[in-house]
Amino acid sequence: MGETIDFRTEPARYRHWKLAVDGAIATLTMDVDEKGGLLGGYDLKLNSYDLGVDIELADAIERLRFEHPAVKVVIMKSGKDRVFCAGANIRMLASATHAHKVNFCKFTNETRNSIEDASEFSDQKYLCVVNGTAAGGGYELALACDHIMLVDDGSASVSLPELPLLAVLPGTGGLTRVTDKRKVRRDRADVFCTTEEGVKGQRAVDWKLVDEVMPRSKMDEKIAVRAQKFVSSATGKGVSDPGILLPPIERTRTSDANEYKYVSVTFDRENRLATITLRGSEDQPPESDDPSWLIQRGASFWLLALARELDDAILDIRLNELEIATIVFKSEGDLRRALDYDIYLDMCGEHWLAREIKLKWKRLLKRIDMTSRSLVTLIEPGSCFAGTLAELLFAADRSYMLIGTMDGDNRAPAAITLGDANFTRQYAMGNGLTRIETRFLGEPSAIDDAKESIGVELDAEKADELGLVTAALDDIDWEDEVRLFLEERASFSPDGLTGMEANLRFAGPETMETKIFARLTAWQNWIFQRPNAVGPEGALPRYGSGQKPNYDLKRV
Amino acid sequence: MGETIDFRTEPARYRHWKLAVDGAIATLTMDVDEKGGLLGGYDLKLNSYDLGVDIELADAIERLRFEHPAVKVVIMKSGKDRVFCAGANIRMLASATHAHKVNFCKFTNETRNSIEDASEFSDQKYLCVVNGTAAGGGYELALACDHIMLVDDGSASVSLPELPLLAVLPGTGGLTRVTDKRKVRRDRADVFCTTEEGVKGQRAVDWKLVDEVMPRSKMDEKIAVRAQKFVSSATGKGVSDPGILLPPIERTRTSDANEYKYVSVTFDRENRLATITLRGSEDQPPESDDPSWLIQRGASFWLLALARELDDAILDIRLNELEIATIVFKSEGDLRRALDYDIYLDMCGEHWLAREIKLKWKRLLKRIDMTSRSLVTLIEPGSCFAGTLAELLFAADRSYMLIGTMDGDNRAPAAITLGDANFTRQYAMGNGLTRIETRFLGEPSAIDDAKESIGVELDAEKADELGLVTAALDDIDWEDEVRLFLEERASFSPDGLTGMEANLRFAGPETMETKIFARLTAWQNWIFQRPNAVGPEGALPRYGSGQKPNYDLKRV
Repeated sequence: MGETIDFRTEPARYRHWKLAVDGAIATLTMDVDEKGGLLGGYDLKLNSYDLGVDIELADAIERLRFEHPAVKVVIMKSGKDRVFCAGANIRMLASATHAHKVNFCKFTNETRNSIEDASEFSDQKYLCVVNGTAAGGGYELALACDHIMLVDDGSASVSLPELPLLAVLPGTGGLTRVTDKRKVRRDRADVFCTTEEGVKGQRAVDWKLVDEVMPRSKMDEKIAVRAQKFVSSATGKGVSDPGILLPPIERTRTSDANEYKYVSVTFDRENRLATITLRGSEDQPPESDDPSWLIQRGASFWLLALARELDDAILDIRLNELEIATIVFKSEGDLRRALDYDIYLDMCGEHWLAREIKLKWKRLLKRIDMTSRSLVTLIEPGSCFAGTLAELLFAADRSYMLIGTMDGDNRAPAAITLGDANFTRQYAMGNGLTRIETRFLGEPSAIDDAKESIGVELDAEKADELGLVTAALDDIDWEDEVRLFLEERASFSPDGLTGMEANLRFAGPETMETKIFARLTAWQNWIFQRPNAVGPEGALPRYGSGQKPNYDLKRV
Repeated sequence: MGETIDFRTEPARYRHWKLAVDGAIATLTMDVDEKGGLLGGYDLKLNSYDLGVDIELADAIERLRFEHPAVKVVIMKSGKDRVFCAGANIRMLASATHAHKVNFCKFTNETRNSIEDASEFSDQKYLCVVNGTAAGGGYELALACDHIMLVDDGSASVSLPELPLLAVLPGTGGLTRVTDKRKVRRDRADVFCTTEEGVKGQRAVDWKLVDEVMPRSKMDEKIAVRAQKFVSSATGKGVSDPGILLPPIERTRTSDANEYKYVSVTFDRENRLATITLRGSEDQPPESDDPSWLIQRGASFWLLALARELDDAILDIRLNELEIATIVFKSEGDLRRALDYDIYLDMCGEHWLAREIKLKWKRLLKRIDMTSRSLVTLIEPGSCFAGTLAELLFAADRSYMLIGTMDGDNRAPAAITLGDANFTRQYAMGNGLTRIETRFLGEPSAIDDAKESIGVELDAEKADELGLVTAALDDIDWEDEVRLFLEERASFSPDGLTGMEANLRFAGPETMETKIFARLTAWQNWIFQRPNAVGPEGALPRYGSGQKPNYDLKRV
């Protein structure tokens, strides 16, 4: 596992998926290459998956939105005969480190959520064709889709056999989607989740586990009809535009840095610190509501390029830099211009690409919320935290802002500017609220005060007064305070911090999404530590060995 | 830890608390006996607590409601000089088993919730006087109260030092109550929870951590004024009745059984099974709205006596019978009479004792929901699952009902009857919904159908048709199906079941309460397993040793 995991891919390089687009209908075929495991040491039999398979899926879902905006329905199916998907590969789970298992589940959850996000906001519906066994993560993939069609041939079935087979939980939202999305009666859910062989045929429909069954002989016909129905009922948010191309993200990796066009990541490994600097655009966006400039820029449009690079940087730290305790966000650029980009996107109104760029930022900011590292945003002279970028002040566990300037720096004192983006819920957190709403749950009037400052350059004292930063510090205190914070963070128990931050970051309402990441994930992480699952006599190592697991029988 | 933990106590036997009542004002003084640890091997210094201390607190809170209904405000204070409470005892935590830690936290959480329940529903407000250090669980106790008064003497402070000191989380709802009850801004919460010494004085008020500060010299005066304000604003739900006495619960324990008046618990340890049989009343309640019969019966009123006994039985299994996999609920008695008790309570209307009995059942049913054992309700001839008792059909993970009779049994076939109690939210789950609402999230019309059956004796087929039981089985299938279910349950990983049930039982909305039990508890349980907290070089064993913990630095 010493190898670096790379999240960048593209359809031509897929080993496990095929993406075909035909007008408004796309087909995403899962045909996992047994020998294509990411970590090595296991075969990906029966369309089972590992992180590598999911990286391709996430890429395909994203490309469908940017490169194929005219697509209204995505048919997700298997390329194997009588097997839909056997779920996460068990040998991989048994051999992976705890950290990898947790990160793997987190990424796959984000990918499932991105399917639901595409359905809700980009009007790309997902139609899942279960032509055989959909077990565990296989059924969870189906659960993320809008409509599940199950072949009724006496053998095709859906199941969540994790508990009886492996002594773990379905790790990709299965339990939550069964009870809260499909609203299966809880005693039936209990029967379902404890039945290794799962449920098939009409009972699967009666129990709300799938939406319809179909004879194998009529599969193609039924799928075509159903897909056409989704196309017909599409609300027209999709477009006839050809879409824009997402070229590979260019990254230069050195031992202590990752350099992108608009993002620099530097690692101070001794102090367990990653500093991510976001750079502003060199170009001024037009003062216009004409999206042609946007289309022409395509993937090189500053806010989109920045989002893709930052997303890659975050994923790289999550999976490849496990000992980094704290991520520091900084920015460099023209403050007003950063806000102008938001304004231009807003002027482009409901244009599909403007919408997709905002949705990309929404998902990226949620990914940052879910990143189990301490997050701090430092606002210094020359920074450009405006509008979209200002969300990083509120996504961070803390934000510090310098009052005045540093000795020898002749730039103007730091300022921040809020924009509509901070208030409209276009970047809603998993809890459904804006980060500012979550921040000021206890002082709703502070939200109004902040809103009145939209477009205004706020200096450190004013930002502090409005409650937008944790502290405003002068140059004398700055270095000490920031250093102390970073040292302190590096000295705390990494696990304790993960648990604390997972609790403090999500005040307010809960949604299915927060439920999956909090309740389900936390329990799964607990179980992933327990000898009954992962110990030498536990269910995961003993799976397939012919030996039964030996459980500590105490209920906790 | 081989000794049996007994949850029964009474003020005369308290070692750690003093309860004094003066008209509408009660004072609950925490003065922990250092040498009175429940498990042995540690001293309860500085008003630190263990389960034994909390058992007394839970008892006092309950007695205030039943024995002192005229009390409108409870002043919670410390009997020690300049120390409010140092929280859960660290040596106890370091030496306790994982199961004990988890059960300890669960019970203390339920006790904190019962304070908030008394405040919301019984109009007994809690006023917390922090006269010195309120650290960790000490501050969490304050957080459960309605109003926190902090002495402003330059040293009294509130703190949640768990993370920096012990590498664990505050385990009694602290993080959730800081963000969601007191709505402290999240970056301030982050600073607060990472600051060992906590926050004192005006800053504690500014950050919403406490409600007011007061000079030490004016403490008594300020407390008296504040208490009087609460008394004046009480809505009058309280009464001038003297209350009823709660005598000790009588229990006969043998090696394989616990016998109470209305409850029998039998243990089949080989099959990891506890069967709890609830017996109906021998007396018919009056058809009247006169509460005098209720008052005269007092603690021997069937539904109250039953609730107290069942509560004790559940707690006994939780703490003392760790290897029991499944709890089977059965009942014996007159079905109609069981419902008549509900009807009589309803006719007594807003009488305080009728209200308290229902509230006791609400808390008891929630405790059952939170019990990490598989739960099954078996409905056989002669059973009396009506109204309140019928909630056990929906609290269970599954319920099975016998069709017809067993060979040689000449009793009438089993029936169940629903009552208003199943629909009014008087027994709302932690998620705020009734168990029937939660059950039928996906079929709201099924709730209406069930409601139409109120008062009707439903046989197995009808109950099944209405979706009220998991399965209706004839005598031929009954034995096999039930046995298979119980064997299967005993064969699964206890940890996996705990995680699965914790997810499947709580569909629908989340509340602060479910957030505490799900998000916070699950993360805490995870951390309680991690070497950084509990390993030989972890923070808990090394606390106070002078040696720093040695952390695995990987963030997970």
